[in-house]
Amino acid sequence: MSIPVFYAPQQERHDPKTFIFRGQVTQSPEQAERAHVFLKAAKAAGHDVRAPEDRGEAPIRAIHDAGYVDFLKTAHADWSALPNASAEITPNVHPSRHMADIRGIGAKASIVSRVGYYTTDTACPIGAGTWEGVYWSAQTALAAAAHVESGERSAYALCRPPGHHAYHDLSGGFCFLNNSAIAAQALLAKFGRVAILDVDVHHGNGTQGIFYGRDDVLTVSLHGDPTSFYPWYTGFEDERGEGIGTGCNLNIPLPQGTGDDAYLEALEPALAAVKAFQPGALVVALGLDASEADPLRFFHITTPGFGRIGAAIAGLGLPSVLVQEGGYPSDILGENLASFLKGFEGR
Amino acid sequence: MSIPVFYAPQQERHDPKTFIFRGQVTQSPEQAERAHVFLKAAKAAGHDVRAPEDRGEAPIRAIHDAGYVDFLKTAHADWSALPNASAEITPNVHPSRHMADIRGIGAKASIVSRVGYYTTDTACPIGAGTWEGVYWSAQTALAAAAHVESGERSAYALCRPPGHHAYHDLSGGFCFLNNSAIAAQALLAKFGRVAILDVDVHHGNGTQGIFYGRDDVLTVSLHGDPTSFYPWYTGFEDERGEGIGTGCNLNIPLPQGTGDDAYLEALEPALAAVKAFQPGALVVALGLDASEADPLRFFHITTPGFGRIGAAIAGLGLPSVLVQEGGYPSDILGENLASFLKGFEGR
Repeated sequence: MSIPVFYAPQQERHDPKTFIFRGQVTQSPEQAERAHVFLKAAKAAGHDVRAPEDRGEAPIRAIHDAGYVDFLKTAHADWSALPNASAEITPNVHPSRHMADIRGIGAKASIVSRVGYYTTDTACPIGAGTWEGVYWSAQTALAAAAHVESGERSAYALCRPPGHHAYHDLSGGFCFLNNSAIAAQALLAKFGRVAILDVDVHHGNGTQGIFYGRDDVLTVSLHGDPTSFYPWYTGFEDERGEGIGTGCNLNIPLPQGTGDDAYLEALEPALAAVKAFQPGALVVALGLDASEADPLRFFHITTPGFGRIGAAIAGLGLPSVLVQEGGYPSDILGENLASFLKGFEGR
Repeated sequence: MSIPVFYAPQQERHDPKTFIFRGQVTQSPEQAERAHVFLKAAKAAGHDVRAPEDRGEAPIRAIHDAGYVDFLKTAHADWSALPNASAEITPNVHPSRHMADIRGIGAKASIVSRVGYYTTDTACPIGAGTWEGVYWSAQTALAAAAHVESGERSAYALCRPPGHHAYHDLSGGFCFLNNSAIAAQALLAKFGRVAILDVDVHHGNGTQGIFYGRDDVLTVSLHGDPTSFYPWYTGFEDERGEGIGTGCNLNIPLPQGTGDDAYLEALEPALAAVKAFQPGALVVALGLDASEADPLRFFHITTPGFGRIGAAIAGLGLPSVLVQEGGYPSDILGENLASFLKGFEGR
C-alpha cells in the first residue's frame, strides 16, 4: 500500500527572496527546495507522484474573497508600476484596529493601500510568479481531495507555499491561499461534515478564521503557545467559534520544548473532538516544523514521533487528505515526512 | 510682536535611522535636522526660544493608553534582549482585523507581539532614545499650551517627532505621542471647548481617532486625498465622528497638485466650522509638507502661500497653540515656517 502524492511543479513559480524578521532583511526560509526534499523522500518511500488537473478558480473563490483573489492576481504588476518599488511586494503600512472601524478597501484603491489591507506581515513577499505558484498549490490540494472523494482512503498534497495562516481575505506567515480550507470545502459536497486537524507547530489561524462561524467544518489545532510564538494574537484555548460555529473550534496550545510523549498525550483530546464531531472526512494540515531539528526549534518531535502521530491520526479511520503546511530545511525533514506517512499507512 | 518658540533639545534623543518604504530599507526622513532648520528660521525671524518645563506623564496619559505608554518606555530594552534583533525596532507582524476580533494584548505578552499591536507601519523605528525624545516633544507642546492658558495670544511648539498620526494606543507615520491632542486636552481645563485645525499634507488620523466620540474637541483636517496618499485608510469626507461626537470631525481631502488659491478656498469651510463650534482656543497642527518643494510633492503651496494660510487662520482671533507636525528638508523649509508665522502675526 502507498499514499498517492500530488505535486504541481508550477508551484515553484512562487520564489520568495526577502523576509523582514526582527527588523532585518533576510532570506525567506519558504523555498522551493522544501518541495524537492518532500518529493524525494516520498518517492524513496515508494509513494507514486501525480500531477493535479486544473479545476479552475471556482473552488478557490468558494473560500476566498473575490477582491483578495483579484489582488493576488494583479498586485505584482500594479506594484511594479510604482516609482522606486522593490522587486517583491513587502507591505509597509496596514489599516489598524481603529482605521478598520472606519472603512474597508475598494477595488480601485491604490496598490499601496491594497497591499496593506490584504497582508498582515512581512513574510509574504509577492513576486511575478506568486499567483501561478499559489494557484497550483491550491490545485494540488484539490486534486488530493478529489482522489479521496472518488473513494480512496487517503492522498497527500505536496503544497507549497503553505496555506493555514491565510484568512479568506488576508495573507500571512508565508501563506496566501488556504489549501487545507479549500480541500475541506471541496470535500463537503460528498461528505457533509469535515474536520481539519492541524499539527503544524504554529496555530492554524487562517483556517480557524475561515470556519469560525460555521458548524459544518470542525477546526482543531495543536501548536506552540501563542503567548510566545507566531501568530501571537490567536490560538488560545478560549477561542471556541462563534454563532452556530460555537464549539466547532478547538485550540490546544503547548509549551516550548514539547516532545513526543507530551504531544501524543495532547493529541488524544484532539482526536476525541474529531470523533465526537462525526465527520465524513478529515483534512490533516500537516506541518512538519514541530521537528526537534527544525530551524524554529520550538517543539522537539523526533522522526519516530512523527510516525506515532501519523498512526494515531490514522486510528480515526476516516478518509483523509494530508495537506503539506510548514516544515523547514534540516537533515531529517524528508525522513520526518516518510515517517509520518509510514505511521499513517500502518506499516 | 513675536511668537514665543518652545523647543526641547532632548527631542533629538529620538534619532531614527531605518524606514522601510516600498519594500526597501532607506533612511528615515524624520531627522533632528528638521528641528535645526525650524529653530534657525524662527530665531532669524526674531521669535525668542524657550525651553519647556517638565510637566510629567499625567498630561500624556490623559490622552494615551497606559499600556501603550509603558510599551514606549520599555520596548527598546525588551527588543534588544531578543536574539538577532535589529538595533531599532521595526514591526514585522500585526494583529489583523480578524485577529483583533478575537483578542487584545496583555501587558505580559511577548515584545514581538506588543510591537505589532502598538505600531501600524514601518515608519516608526524605536531606538534607545525614542521615549526621551517623544516625552520632550509632548512637553514642548504642553509648554506652548500653558503659555496660551496664561493669557497670551499664541505660542509655537517646535515638536519633533511629529504626533498627529498617533492614536491613543498606536504609533504610525513617524508619530508616537499625539502632541496636538495632548495640547488640546491641556487647554480644555481653561477653555472648555477646543478646535484642532490640521494643515499638514497628510490626514491627522490619530487626532481624529482620539476625539472621534467626543463633543468637546472639534477636529478639522485638510489633506491629500487618501485614495492615493498616506494614511490611505482614513481621511474621507464621510468620517464625521460617532456618538456624541457626530458632527465634530471634518475632513477636507484635496487632490494632488493643489496650489495656494485652491487651498485657501478649501480652508474657508474649515474656518467656518471652527467658528461655528465656538471654541475657546485653537490648536493648529502645523505640517509644512504641503510645500511645493517638499520631498513628498503632493501639494504645491508656495512660501507666500503659507503666509496667506497663517493670516487666514489668525483671522479666527482665537488663542492659538501652533504645534509642528510634518515637513521635510528642502531649500525653503525654514522660509515656509517663517512665512506662516509672519502671516499669523499679521505682519
